[in-house]
Amino acid sequence: MMDNFSLADQKYMSRALWLAQLGEKKVAPGPMVGTVIVKDSEIIGEGYYKSYQGIHAELQALKMGNKKNKGATMYINLEPCYKPQELPSCIKSIINSGIKRIVISMINPDPEISGRGVKALKKAGIKVELGLFKKEAVELNETFLKYIKTDYPFVYLKKAQTLDGYIASKTGDSKWIINAKARNESNKLRNKVNAILVGIGTILADDPILTTRLKDQPASDPERIVLDPQLDIPLSAKIINQNSDAQTLLITSAKKLKNTSGELTDKIKALQNKAKVELIELELKNKTFFDLKEVLSLLHSRGISSLLVEGGARISCSFLQENLVDKYYYFIAPRIYGGNDGISSFCGSGPELMANAIDLKIIEYKMLDDNILLIAKNKN
Amino acid sequence: MMDNFSLADQKYMSRALWLAQLGEKKVAPGPMVGTVIVKDSEIIGEGYYKSYQGIHAELQALKMGNKKNKGATMYINLEPCYKPQELPSCIKSIINSGIKRIVISMINPDPEISGRGVKALKKAGIKVELGLFKKEAVELNETFLKYIKTDYPFVYLKKAQTLDGYIASKTGDSKWIINAKARNESNKLRNKVNAILVGIGTILADDPILTTRLKDQPASDPERIVLDPQLDIPLSAKIINQNSDAQTLLITSAKKLKNTSGELTDKIKALQNKAKVELIELELKNKTFFDLKEVLSLLHSRGISSLLVEGGARISCSFLQENLVDKYYYFIAPRIYGGNDGISSFCGSGPELMANAIDLKIIEYKMLDDNILLIAKNKN
Repeated sequence: MMDNFSLADQKYMSRALWLAQLGEKKVAPGPMVGTVIVKDSEIIGEGYYKSYQGIHAELQALKMGNKKNKGATMYINLEPCYKPQELPSCIKSIINSGIKRIVISMINPDPEISGRGVKALKKAGIKVELGLFKKEAVELNETFLKYIKTDYPFVYLKKAQTLDGYIASKTGDSKWIINAKARNESNKLRNKVNAILVGIGTILADDPILTTRLKDQPASDPERIVLDPQLDIPLSAKIINQNSDAQTLLITSAKKLKNTSGELTDKIKALQNKAKVELIELELKNKTFFDLKEVLSLLHSRGISSLLVEGGARISCSFLQENLVDKYYYFIAPRIYGGNDGISSFCGSGPELMANAIDLKIIEYKMLDDNILLIAKNKN
Repeated sequence: MMDNFSLADQKYMSRALWLAQLGEKKVAPGPMVGTVIVKDSEIIGEGYYKSYQGIHAELQALKMGNKKNKGATMYINLEPCYKPQELPSCIKSIINSGIKRIVISMINPDPEISGRGVKALKKAGIKVELGLFKKEAVELNETFLKYIKTDYPFVYLKKAQTLDGYIASKTGDSKWIINAKARNESNKLRNKVNAILVGIGTILADDPILTTRLKDQPASDPERIVLDPQLDIPLSAKIINQNSDAQTLLITSAKKLKNTSGELTDKIKALQNKAKVELIELELKNKTFFDLKEVLSLLHSRGISSLLVEGGARISCSFLQENLVDKYYYFIAPRIYGGNDGISSFCGSGPELMANAIDLKIIEYKMLDDNILLIAKNKN
């Protein structure tokens, strides 16, 4: 699609995309949107969506452009919103501003908008051009797209392992497999997502805090989700006794939440009295573990559009085998555990034939000093 | 060291190194040597060591330079040989040729030469300059250096695995984990070494032929070494029934080679009647397996300077734990086995703490389409 657009168009849309990403995480579960308005080869207005339900990028840019907007070109990575019942609608403002041409990377997948914005713009006599940097725009908003199109959040699975595939030694030791730079990169992923999920096994084994620790950069903690069917979490667990803006959500099975007389048990009361801790009931599937799809729907309904799975081998394996992972972050250290009794990346039974293994498509790979980071998706 | 040398010096020594590598494998267990002679900014002679005990690089270059050699500069990656008892010695020929200056990358580690060649050249009034591209020269001849300095060959360990560290599925299937390009690269490694070693387990499980198959390139098969303590190899095994210039060496324990009456058993007779098959006796250590150091010394004594270990988990683990690996070739495919019941890269027990895992230093990494090749050495 780039062939249809001038170098100037590409330059301004690149800037719109760059502006858009400044809103990462803060706009979730909404989309990242950036807008640039250009007249006579000069940027006269720009803006980006800064926070969920904040002022839209288009309106910020239009306000900045003000009277110069007449006859100008607008660049935006996502079709502007068109909700006649909501005022001010961006489409209405664009039409009123006198903008002559609008270049849009991709149609808004929100079923209430999808294509209707473009139609209204065209009807008003504005020249609409679609598709510039569509691939980049889709990638930028992949979590929003998953959120709006399905009932699940976008799921990242992170692994930090030795060259021979172990995430911990036979004694459970994992400090540290990957180097400081890789751990910082791993924290950047935490900084990016709305929520992080682990199983109770990880809490009992490692007592982690699951906050975001970044070098030389402000960090925001994701909401912490613990799958704890039997409510085995100790009241002293660090994850529920720390100073963090984000809350910890304990998902547990209904039977444990109330005792036979219908009253809350002491443990539940104690947990509910803790700051930033919330308990939520979910029924078990086959009396053993939660249905992960139900867990994902629950998180989706709470406005979580991106989720990082950092659980141990069992949780990882369930996400993998139920095909619920959208993106893999594989950190590999150049060290060999050198046995077959460490804790593997996944547990359970693999396929009989290697041809039936799960093929990934590498999106990106980079060296973090001597560690490797592979970012991948399912191939099929 | 490069600071002392002109760009012209670097250019000519690069060519000498390039010429040297043309002799790879063919000159084993001798060193790869390349020589360039330059006079008035013109190459007047060059040569490289083409085959073991063939004509030395220096003599080829001197012959080509002929009468022009007087007053010229010679570039050579390894100190020329100085063995007064051997005629013609390279040192003597260089002195007689009238060469005025000689640039040498590194001293010859052969204890019979080491530094004596340089001393003789200096004594004859030739200007000797040492150290240009020493690092590259050392790397080029790493197998020769190991061979000449120790009683072992240089050992390569190859692994071809999934992202989560499995070399085969639970049923033993491994066809194919890595892609065609990676398999071709793996064959290039076979093409490079004198010998390839596997355990009898690999023969019984996979019945491999262990020859070199290269795309669009002539290939040479390494000698095949099978560690077969109890002589369990079937007479029908492909490895001893194929058309290959290289031989197959079966290392087996002494007791099995002869029966009680001192005669050879039928199986041994049948094996000895096969073309290109040789049996060799070696005693077991602790009555269970060979001492790998004894195996390496045996191969060294047979002139094998580079060995590729392609065995399964058990053999690999023994080489790893006894610290006998010089260079690792790790091929990693972007696919997930997704269980913990596959065949791991190594077997046996790993360390309690990850801090005690074996740290590697990455020498090189490259993408082979979507597969990764890591070439590494032990860090310490």
